[in-house]
Amino acid sequence: MLASSAVLRRQHFLIRSLGTHNNQNHTQRIRYIQTVTMVAEADAENILRRITPILDPNRHKGQAGKVAVVGGCREYTGAPYFAAISALKLGADLSHVFCTKDAAAVIKSYSPELIVHPVLEESYSVRDDEKRAVSTKVLAEVARWMERFDCLVVGPGLGRDPFLLLARRSNVPIVIDGDGLFLVTNSIDLVSGYHLAVLTPNVNEYKRLVQKMLGSEVNDQDASQQLLALARSIGGVTILRKGKSDMISDGYSVHTVSIFGSPRRCGGQGDILSGSVALFLSWALQSSTAPGDSTTSLSNPMVLGCIAASALLRKAASVAFENKKRATLTSDIIEHLGQSLDDICPAC
Amino acid sequence: MLASSAVLRRQHFLIRSLGTHNNQNHTQRIRYIQTVTMVAEADAENILRRITPILDPNRHKGQAGKVAVVGGCREYTGAPYFAAISALKLGADLSHVFCTKDAAAVIKSYSPELIVHPVLEESYSVRDDEKRAVSTKVLAEVARWMERFDCLVVGPGLGRDPFLLLARRSNVPIVIDGDGLFLVTNSIDLVSGYHLAVLTPNVNEYKRLVQKMLGSEVNDQDASQQLLALARSIGGVTILRKGKSDMISDGYSVHTVSIFGSPRRCGGQGDILSGSVALFLSWALQSSTAPGDSTTSLSNPMVLGCIAASALLRKAASVAFENKKRATLTSDIIEHLGQSLDDICPAC
Repeated sequence: MLASSAVLRRQHFLIRSLGTHNNQNHTQRIRYIQTVTMVAEADAENILRRITPILDPNRHKGQAGKVAVVGGCREYTGAPYFAAISALKLGADLSHVFCTKDAAAVIKSYSPELIVHPVLEESYSVRDDEKRAVSTKVLAEVARWMERFDCLVVGPGLGRDPFLLLARRSNVPIVIDGDGLFLVTNSIDLVSGYHLAVLTPNVNEYKRLVQKMLGSEVNDQDASQQLLALARSIGGVTILRKGKSDMISDGYSVHTVSIFGSPRRCGGQGDILSGSVALFLSWALQSSTAPGDSTTSLSNPMVLGCIAASALLRKAASVAFENKKRATLTSDIIEHLGQSLDDICPAC
Repeated sequence: MLASSAVLRRQHFLIRSLGTHNNQNHTQRIRYIQTVTMVAEADAENILRRITPILDPNRHKGQAGKVAVVGGCREYTGAPYFAAISALKLGADLSHVFCTKDAAAVIKSYSPELIVHPVLEESYSVRDDEKRAVSTKVLAEVARWMERFDCLVVGPGLGRDPFLLLARRSNVPIVIDGDGLFLVTNSIDLVSGYHLAVLTPNVNEYKRLVQKMLGSEVNDQDASQQLLALARSIGGVTILRKGKSDMISDGYSVHTVSIFGSPRRCGGQGDILSGSVALFLSWALQSSTAPGDSTTSLSNPMVLGCIAASALLRKAASVAFENKKRATLTSDIIEHLGQSLDDICPAC
């Protein structure tokens, strides 16, 4: 029941987005540019309180969020695990991982909480002439799952194209990170114009996107205008540019998140972020009951999800760093996600 | 950007080293011998403070260190894990392990924080006539990664020769421990004259090196002269001779580290050391901005890395032993690495 209302809500959001973003007239375009001169620090704590659902004993399994992570290959097993477990630790009910067979056994061993599907093939084990057949097989395996998910995170591993296509066909939101961004940068049509897509580039991934889409280098003097132009050039997807301050834009306005944070840059924090964005944007979509005011980014559930996830990762990282200092690892940060959310938005 | 400055810094260090160490004249040789009569306990805490980088929120992932460990085979999975996780727990951003396929699944399962590459073959599964083909395959797999690393730790597992050759070609520092030392003792040309190499022999590995290179037995009455001669006989590599006191020489002078320590001799502590040396020497190379004074070993980043790692392992081991006494294991020591560093050199 809720699944279908979630699907309807996503469709409504897409229809509204198409109306306000794609068919913008000249006056609106000018307003966009004026808006962006006011790059604002988002009121992240308030947004977290707004979108985090009340824990209601009448709800049943799945209603607090079902996230799927596509990733995991021969080298990378930690990344999809971090993304999937982060969503659970923040309050998702179910977290799936789609990965290669070799990666599956390892990811399962990290935690019995995850549902792990060994459906992908390693790139080195697939010949070029077999790729289409492999894609078809993956499609068949995954199609029956796709509509059940509230959000899909796409990271490393072969066979991501069919996931993107399927998710888009089913109006399932997508968070694209890591190697997924490499794929998308080279095949931008996979996400272009899809308002339920979020890209979360780091410094190098952002650089490649800017070069590809804007034909220029990254300009930190005018970072917000460039981010706005980039989001708009990909047809109004939402971009979360990771950095000392995180910057978020859907091509409409730009928000920054600078609160909290830690100076530790251990690998894996981006995976916490992608899993968290997935859950928070699902919650934001669920809570976006009020129609109408879609003229500001702060009614865009994608943007709200990014702001919420950014702030919460930064808070958990700062608490972990207080305790562990230089020894802080990604697992330590994950252990502080729940308490960090509860500090801002108590469960009861 | 930083990667290339790190590469440049390593090249400058090598050029300086070649100038001062290889082209030494007779007077310099005499001065070496005079210097060594003053075997000094290193001011390890001060060195730790000197080389450990400030945690700067403007830095991004990778800039605090990217370490790779080559090791892991059918028998050994703990050793490369201990080395790789130790570097992370001291503050490295990324830690990779290159190992055999069987070892990979196990090493991954120890921790999702590591990036594990199953590229090596088990020695029993490779016939003599296949060895060249296997080496070529490993080379191809690893070449694209090598320049990204700040330091390589070479331990147990077949297929290490190509790693040593590749690292040397790319001016990547190497720490050689365990079975890696067995390989190097039999093929000393692999490291001879490479000033970015550190050997970390235990009592038996040291004995074999001395027999091979100096044609004599270990002489504990004149330990420092012998260590100096050994380091010089391998063309100025740095040797960390592990023992009740650790002794360190680059063929130029000799330093001891005797502070802290624990009477517990559980296996695996050498792996903590090799991973720690890798990180600390990377940091020492990063911080060696002042050109010029390369006439003392205390400006040699390899020596500084050894002193720092030795002292820190000894401190963490002593704290772990206070808590766990005879039950102290290597994992317990690893859990005290971060706090031990922070006690000497607070993160903030």
